[in-house]
Amino acid sequence: MANKKSQTTDGNDLRSLLRAKANVAMTDLDPGATPGFPGTSKADVADLTAELAPVLSDWQERLYAENKEPDTPQRSILVVLQGLDTSGKGGIIRHVFGLVDPQGLKIHAFKQPTPEELSHDFLWRIRQQLPSPGMIGIFDRSQYEDVLVVRVNELVEPAVWQQRYDLINDFEASLTASGTTIIKCFLNMSPDEQKRRLLERLENPTKYWKFSHGDVEVRGRWDDYMVAYQDVLNRCNTDVAPWYVIPSDRKWYRNWAVATLLLEHLEGMNPQWPQAEFVVEDEIAAVKNSLPQR
Amino acid sequence: MANKKSQTTDGNDLRSLLRAKANVAMTDLDPGATPGFPGTSKADVADLTAELAPVLSDWQERLYAENKEPDTPQRSILVVLQGLDTSGKGGIIRHVFGLVDPQGLKIHAFKQPTPEELSHDFLWRIRQQLPSPGMIGIFDRSQYEDVLVVRVNELVEPAVWQQRYDLINDFEASLTASGTTIIKCFLNMSPDEQKRRLLERLENPTKYWKFSHGDVEVRGRWDDYMVAYQDVLNRCNTDVAPWYVIPSDRKWYRNWAVATLLLEHLEGMNPQWPQAEFVVEDEIAAVKNSLPQR
Repeated sequence: MANKKSQTTDGNDLRSLLRAKANVAMTDLDPGATPGFPGTSKADVADLTAELAPVLSDWQERLYAENKEPDTPQRSILVVLQGLDTSGKGGIIRHVFGLVDPQGLKIHAFKQPTPEELSHDFLWRIRQQLPSPGMIGIFDRSQYEDVLVVRVNELVEPAVWQQRYDLINDFEASLTASGTTIIKCFLNMSPDEQKRRLLERLENPTKYWKFSHGDVEVRGRWDDYMVAYQDVLNRCNTDVAPWYVIPSDRKWYRNWAVATLLLEHLEGMNPQWPQAEFVVEDEIAAVKNSLPQR
Repeated sequence: MANKKSQTTDGNDLRSLLRAKANVAMTDLDPGATPGFPGTSKADVADLTAELAPVLSDWQERLYAENKEPDTPQRSILVVLQGLDTSGKGGIIRHVFGLVDPQGLKIHAFKQPTPEELSHDFLWRIRQQLPSPGMIGIFDRSQYEDVLVVRVNELVEPAVWQQRYDLINDFEASLTASGTTIIKCFLNMSPDEQKRRLLERLENPTKYWKFSHGDVEVRGRWDDYMVAYQDVLNRCNTDVAPWYVIPSDRKWYRNWAVATLLLEHLEGMNPQWPQAEFVVEDEIAAVKNSLPQR
């Protein structure tokens, strides 16, 4: 039943359109753009999402089922969500990944490291949270925090964080080699849009809990974060684990884009339903003959 | 925005209607019944579910938010799903818990224990999977397997499993005392309905992966399982962690009933949005004055 055709036009798939370009400057990226969106306005996104939902759900189940087949390579997906406060990491998990069976998801939000986590190398806690075969893993923040907040706040010496780009690339290469498809999304939001969203949280008592004064302090370091993200995009945008830059000032586009990127990757993986590991007719007879007394 | 009124009529809440009665015989329970269903037919369930979805979603977010408040007791929910193959454990997770934000769910399916798990007491692996404060935990199978399949297949001596009912009651009492609301659902299905569902899996190649010959063998021990479930209902149906018997021959009723039970428990817990831990006006000013150069 899976509709194998994505909604974008041929040659205009989002994997190409949103892939971070080599040496592009952060300041040249438009957070309000809507590349590849096939509708004419926001009003179209509900219908497009309603079409995507059953297709994504079907592919997700195929990926999950595939790993039950003993002779098939064990595959998984890892979606990395990175972006400043209010850029939409949580919103994507709720609205995009909420479209598929929660049994197929492994979601982890990386917070400030615990003392135990700090006592290990920075990738130790990341490895604990990787998706098993058949699963879609979602990282709300990730290994990249160790070259972002850690760098901006000078939590370690420069010599320490500077070597991490290569370590991350090696780590991600080893993951993809062992069957994990990595989809890294940088949620690119403008400072004005962040201001609007922070004020929204402060004007709605049901959103107070999402706000802390630290958010204002991080916002004050905006330019430093952009420099740090620029280096992430320049140094960790590998062909095996590329970065996608998601224009995120429009929530509806952001969610549609991540859903569509996920769809394109699933289509590319093309997981198949496992064959029967039994003689179907024999099992049908066995079921029919079981509990004959009923 | 939460609609605090459940869909069932007053005095007819599902907590009362589905609560396992003391000393009721398994054979007197009707798997095809639809107690408390406010519609007149299956056709009404889509609308009822569409109404439930935003209300459940709102309550789930409140439960999650509540645990951010330092002065509030830390609460969580644990839903235990038990039932024979095809009774709908997976379907409930997909269709009921798929209605809420997946970030608020901690789902675990208990399989045959690993050697490491077996080297510990039977509750060790259960404790690893308990929901954190603010979360809704879902157990697809649970501690009860250790008095069900373990008993039926004689995997331990009777003296060992016989003492487990009390151990489970003590364990559950300690969980509820520390803030976890436990909702135990026995998915009660008839042998005829199971036959129909197993045959359906064998007649649809996209469902082969859900079938194994072991399912027929377990089905052959139906009566032994009913005896084992009877003891579970008799011995572990405590007031702090009661059993609900969910008539499960009709999938639409089963899903509606579990969603409604969840709603009733959330209404009873009545989690509230946290207060601001900051002076709202000060923070609004701070956001407005941040990044003045833009």
